[in-house]
Amino acid sequence: MAGTNLATKLSNVALNNKEKVCLIGSGNWGSVIAKIVAENVSKYPDQFDPEVRMWVFEEMIEGKRLSQIINEKHENVKYLPNVRLPDNVVAHPTLLNAVEAATLLIFVIPHQFVKGACDQIKGHVNPNARAISLIKGVDVSKSGLRLISDVIKENLEMDVSVLMGANIASEVAEEKFCEATVGYRNEANGLVWQRLFNTSYFKIAAIEDVEGVELCGALKNVVAIAAGLVDGLKYGDNTKAAIIRIGLSEMRKFSKLFESNVKDNTFFESCGIADVITTCFGGRNRKVAEARVLTGKSFDQLEKELLNGQKLQGTLTAKEVHIILEQKGLCHEFPLFTQVYNICYEGHEPSAIIKL
Amino acid sequence: MAGTNLATKLSNVALNNKEKVCLIGSGNWGSVIAKIVAENVSKYPDQFDPEVRMWVFEEMIEGKRLSQIINEKHENVKYLPNVRLPDNVVAHPTLLNAVEAATLLIFVIPHQFVKGACDQIKGHVNPNARAISLIKGVDVSKSGLRLISDVIKENLEMDVSVLMGANIASEVAEEKFCEATVGYRNEANGLVWQRLFNTSYFKIAAIEDVEGVELCGALKNVVAIAAGLVDGLKYGDNTKAAIIRIGLSEMRKFSKLFESNVKDNTFFESCGIADVITTCFGGRNRKVAEARVLTGKSFDQLEKELLNGQKLQGTLTAKEVHIILEQKGLCHEFPLFTQVYNICYEGHEPSAIIKL
Repeated sequence: MAGTNLATKLSNVALNNKEKVCLIGSGNWGSVIAKIVAENVSKYPDQFDPEVRMWVFEEMIEGKRLSQIINEKHENVKYLPNVRLPDNVVAHPTLLNAVEAATLLIFVIPHQFVKGACDQIKGHVNPNARAISLIKGVDVSKSGLRLISDVIKENLEMDVSVLMGANIASEVAEEKFCEATVGYRNEANGLVWQRLFNTSYFKIAAIEDVEGVELCGALKNVVAIAAGLVDGLKYGDNTKAAIIRIGLSEMRKFSKLFESNVKDNTFFESCGIADVITTCFGGRNRKVAEARVLTGKSFDQLEKELLNGQKLQGTLTAKEVHIILEQKGLCHEFPLFTQVYNICYEGHEPSAIIKL
Repeated sequence: MAGTNLATKLSNVALNNKEKVCLIGSGNWGSVIAKIVAENVSKYPDQFDPEVRMWVFEEMIEGKRLSQIINEKHENVKYLPNVRLPDNVVAHPTLLNAVEAATLLIFVIPHQFVKGACDQIKGHVNPNARAISLIKGVDVSKSGLRLISDVIKENLEMDVSVLMGANIASEVAEEKFCEATVGYRNEANGLVWQRLFNTSYFKIAAIEDVEGVELCGALKNVVAIAAGLVDGLKYGDNTKAAIIRIGLSEMRKFSKLFESNVKDNTFFESCGIADVITTCFGGRNRKVAEARVLTGKSFDQLEKELLNGQKLQGTLTAKEVHIILEQKGLCHEFPLFTQVYNICYEGHEPSAIIKL
């Protein structure tokens, strides 16, 4: 069995060589994760190499290179100011240098850059390397909805896990207590990732359900659009709770449609209920949808005005989901997802959100 | 099988006689429910008698009896002002008159009055009568935690269902969309209750799990104490989402300990996740726990100052739950429930809430 072979291989790696970590990405969330991971590799020196490399997409900040600033000041002044990174985080502006010899690759870049990053490093990574994706969202290809973890897996031919959860980066940086979920296919790898990320304030549960965990991270944004509409319409707490509940139940149903092995329990984890709650009470999808009702402006317009170049994931995901539901003739079984689509793309009134 | 006999009996009732509804209780929630039920009996005249009786605990309002005001003005001026009750709601100040001939008894009174009401009507109710409890909370007896539905069932020897959900009364009165869950033992009865309560803005799911649904209604208040502490401590959105998630998972685990047949799916219903959300974001348990942190005053003191004579359910339930967990030696498996107890009764600091 492939899983068993890999597990044997991995335990050999762990015996003979230490795990070497590389973060592919150094934005706000990536920098917080670099801090956590760097602290943890120091805690387990027998298992992990002390250096944590972080690939930095080079930018000039007041005439100086960002990677250089990070290595000198131990602070990502642009994306995570005022938080000290451990000295063992080493920024690299060249992706190939960063991943060199790494056995643990952490993908934490905007999802549109994943394919490009994979293309660059393909054939240059340690044959024992495994990856984890922290990217919330799905890939949109001609063949439909595709998980980011699958994009990485197919391009790099390695085992890929995912980490999702109710994790607003700034709060994790302040070491406020929260949880996250690692979804794995290979248990040995899942446990390595759990050890690498788990701290007293960032509690990791590891479960065997990559697809369920990853789909939570994408589909919750559709629910957040619905929650934002309800906020804008001032429908009150009962309605919002109902929308969140129905949303979570459609997330569960859709995930099983996409991959029948998805587990119910996944939706009780941090990646499920907890992340849906934070996303529906905070988060940019909720905010833009609320503004859609309050201002009457289009989602496109509000995305430009409010998101400062970021994309509105919820509406995009709603479209992808709708294409699949329509192909399967199942729109009627997903009234909330369908109403979000209708409101975003078919000119339906926001108040249609409660016509379930 | 008792269930089948009862079902046969019930279908005979439905054929020969119409169901007659009586509400035992006429407070804020009871009055909202009276409105819904009275509208629905008019919608299904073949199944239900048009008159809905409502037992009113008599009070004098500006020299006039409340029951008389309700019957003349069609408004519960004290507990649900400015909402018109349908003309077919008839208030009765005498409990025995109210329940006379009724086949469907809706209990919606404070839980400390349930036993007394049962004692009064015992032997005077229609032999075909079934009951439903809308009371959130548990009974505390020498033998430990006891469901209100069991109190009614044992006293009146009839089938008892429950209705719980994310239902802030004022919002339901305004016909804002929400959901609720009927938990039943006997499916035929569950479907009668569903028909009686379901409207376009108050959507009822009926599931075969009385204990699970009812325990949700009680245990959520313990979670709300935890959520309020976290609010007071300003731990942020991630932490609160984590607390709600852990709370829901302990509710699920505790319910199964109490009654092994409790179903996982129940916690995905309105009585589960949705009600936990509204209770942890609004609600008096959350409010008092937040004030506990902000003012440093005791729960007892704040209950007096903030709740206007109402009891703080969450701390009481935390105590009952703790007694059971201690008896079974299972406190360590319920860290959140145990910390809430420790903070409420053992002088632990509120910040202990995140020591999970």
